Amino acid sequence: MTDDQEPRSPLSFSRRVPQGDTLARDICETCGFINYVNPKIVAGAVIHHDGRILMCRRAIEPRRGFWTIPAGYMEENETAEAAARREAREEACADIVLEGLLAVYSIPRISQVQLIFRARLAEPRFAAGAESLEVALLDWDEVPWPELAFPSVHWALRHFDSVRTRAEFPAFTNPPGETGDRMPKAP
Amino acid sequence: MTDDQEPRSPLSFSRRVPQGDTLARDICETCGFINYVNPKIVAGAVIHHDGRILMCRRAIEPRRGFWTIPAGYMEENETAEAAARREAREEACADIVLEGLLAVYSIPRISQVQLIFRARLAEPRFAAGAESLEVALLDWDEVPWPELAFPSVHWALRHFDSVRTRAEFPAFTNPPGETGDRMPKAP
Repeated sequence: MTDDQEPRSPLSFSRRVPQGDTLARDICETCGFINYVNPKIVAGAVIHHDGRILMCRRAIEPRRGFWTIPAGYMEENETAEAAARREAREEACADIVLEGLLAVYSIPRISQVQLIFRARLAEPRFAAGAESLEVALLDWDEVPWPELAFPSVHWALRHFDSVRTRAEFPAFTNPPGETGDRMPKAP
Repeated sequence: MTDDQEPRSPLSFSRRVPQGDTLARDICETCGFINYVNPKIVAGAVIHHDGRILMCRRAIEPRRGFWTIPAGYMEENETAEAAARREAREEACADIVLEGLLAVYSIPRISQVQLIFRARLAEPRFAAGAESLEVALLDWDEVPWPELAFPSVHWALRHFDSVRTRAEFPAFTNPPGETGDRMPKAP
């Protein structure tokens, strides 16, 4: 149920250090609410089937029309694994089987941590969810590098490709020197 | 600088689905602020030196007086790695060298994800920080299992021990069936 009855008064926050804290936080001048902002967690997966990779063309901003892997914000009371499976269902109508943690990426400018798993399709069925214009299984040489949505999609695809033949592998982190603020070149 | 001038009016939030959203959120009845709550990220490390493990006895609640590894909430604009190094400095006055991601644990009841690295002391120096009563390097048979602060401290120590001899290892997740709601038995 959507509620349209929210008050429409302007929000006014000031940034100062709350009592007993060490860092400045946004504090509502009207009611005293302290808005503790934490880094946000994105969970997702590089999903493979018969050697190809499941990718989604985004139907929403940011980067509408560009290609990504199924991934999105974790919700409350979820595990990282459940969040990655939920995103595959929501964005690609796909049931997946997780095969281990591929990478933990940090994008400090936007206070984001991405938990990316390697996964396979539980069965060869998928379709565009509400947030996708289209979903496709792509061969490596079909990956539309200039049309990828985010730097971390580059990273995840290349990291996935580098351990394709390995059953076990250590989790990757950001490529050296990369902070997520620029798009890498195609491999 | 700490500010004691916060308004002291009681906060009143109602839980409903904001316009354009799909899940219920806490919305301030006074000013309309929508409190999007995301899972919180804890970053930390199992830190070893000469085969022993660096542990801290907590000076703060929750679980004051119990033993833990250096770990704490990520702040904005940090990487996971920087957060783990910062927590080692703050809680154990220790400089550490990260050696790879040990584990990603999810505690869904409290909407928490823990990113735990394996690390070594950069130099054999440490001391109790403001949040620690004492800090010690402990042999495996000195670990005070009944006095560990949290289930995930058990998990991290046991996972660390299981890959001591490996330069590379896949990241662990929660032990099977464990959700962080009960303390495991000593190994």
